[in-house]
Amino acid sequence: MIFLEDTRIGVRQALGSYTFTADAIKAFARAYDPQAFHLDEGAGERSLFGGLAASGWHTASVYMKLLVAYLETLASEAKACGEEVAASGPSPGFKNLKWPRPVLAGDTISYFYEATSMRPLASRPGWGIVFGTTTAVNQRDELVLFFENSVFLRRRSL
Amino acid sequence: MIFLEDTRIGVRQALGSYTFTADAIKAFARAYDPQAFHLDEGAGERSLFGGLAASGWHTASVYMKLLVAYLETLASEAKACGEEVAASGPSPGFKNLKWPRPVLAGDTISYFYEATSMRPLASRPGWGIVFGTTTAVNQRDELVLFFENSVFLRRRSL
Repeated sequence: MIFLEDTRIGVRQALGSYTFTADAIKAFARAYDPQAFHLDEGAGERSLFGGLAASGWHTASVYMKLLVAYLETLASEAKACGEEVAASGPSPGFKNLKWPRPVLAGDTISYFYEATSMRPLASRPGWGIVFGTTTAVNQRDELVLFFENSVFLRRRSL
Repeated sequence: MIFLEDTRIGVRQALGSYTFTADAIKAFARAYDPQAFHLDEGAGERSLFGGLAASGWHTASVYMKLLVAYLETLASEAKACGEEVAASGPSPGFKNLKWPRPVLAGDTISYFYEATSMRPLASRPGWGIVFGTTTAVNQRDELVLFFENSVFLRRRSL
């Protein structure tokens, strides 16, 4: 939704927060990760997690949900100012995804993104690639999700 | 569900297959990745993906779904033979997750796991760590998902 040239390097941006209810944790788990500690409070308490814990893929998918909403807000603001809006390109992937601590029912998780570097793509004129770090912390500011990723963005036409 | 000592290094194991219907692609996207090319056939066809495309997080979450079912089958077989069954531990994370090609509506994706190395954990007696590679291919045997991951497993008590 933004152009390569709009990317701010080294600025941590808040993407939003999400409270993981027991119902949402169980609904995701039933569909995609039906392990007992994601489905049942008692099983969660007896597990290493110490409570009903969200699937790691659930915490990562919520990042995507918040990112999309964040990019839509940026696009709306740009449109309101009469600026051109670009669609973001596909993601080539992720590196070093870590879940250092569990997300338990009732936790409110805040997600952040920080672009760390960018460059135009010699192989694809009009496009660039941005590298960045995504983090998520719980209400005690403890890290629960970390990964490095990259995304293709269009260059602003001059 | 299996012990460190049961891990077979260098053997590619089929975890199962999953057909991504348009309905399932849109349902995941509505909840977690509401971008137009994941929600609408026309928008997908006009995108770089060339069709209604599954969210990358959807293709990764389906891996988890198939892995859990696969591990439950192993556990059932072990129980049927009167063997002890261990719960698997948490995953420390993932490395180098890549989505080299899109997954489009109607594609049937087959997932595979191959353990590449393992070692007992000096820091956690009774536990070990297994490193492995997960791949997923479509019905034309084209790679659509790749990542390296690790998992903690209990050691068999001697």
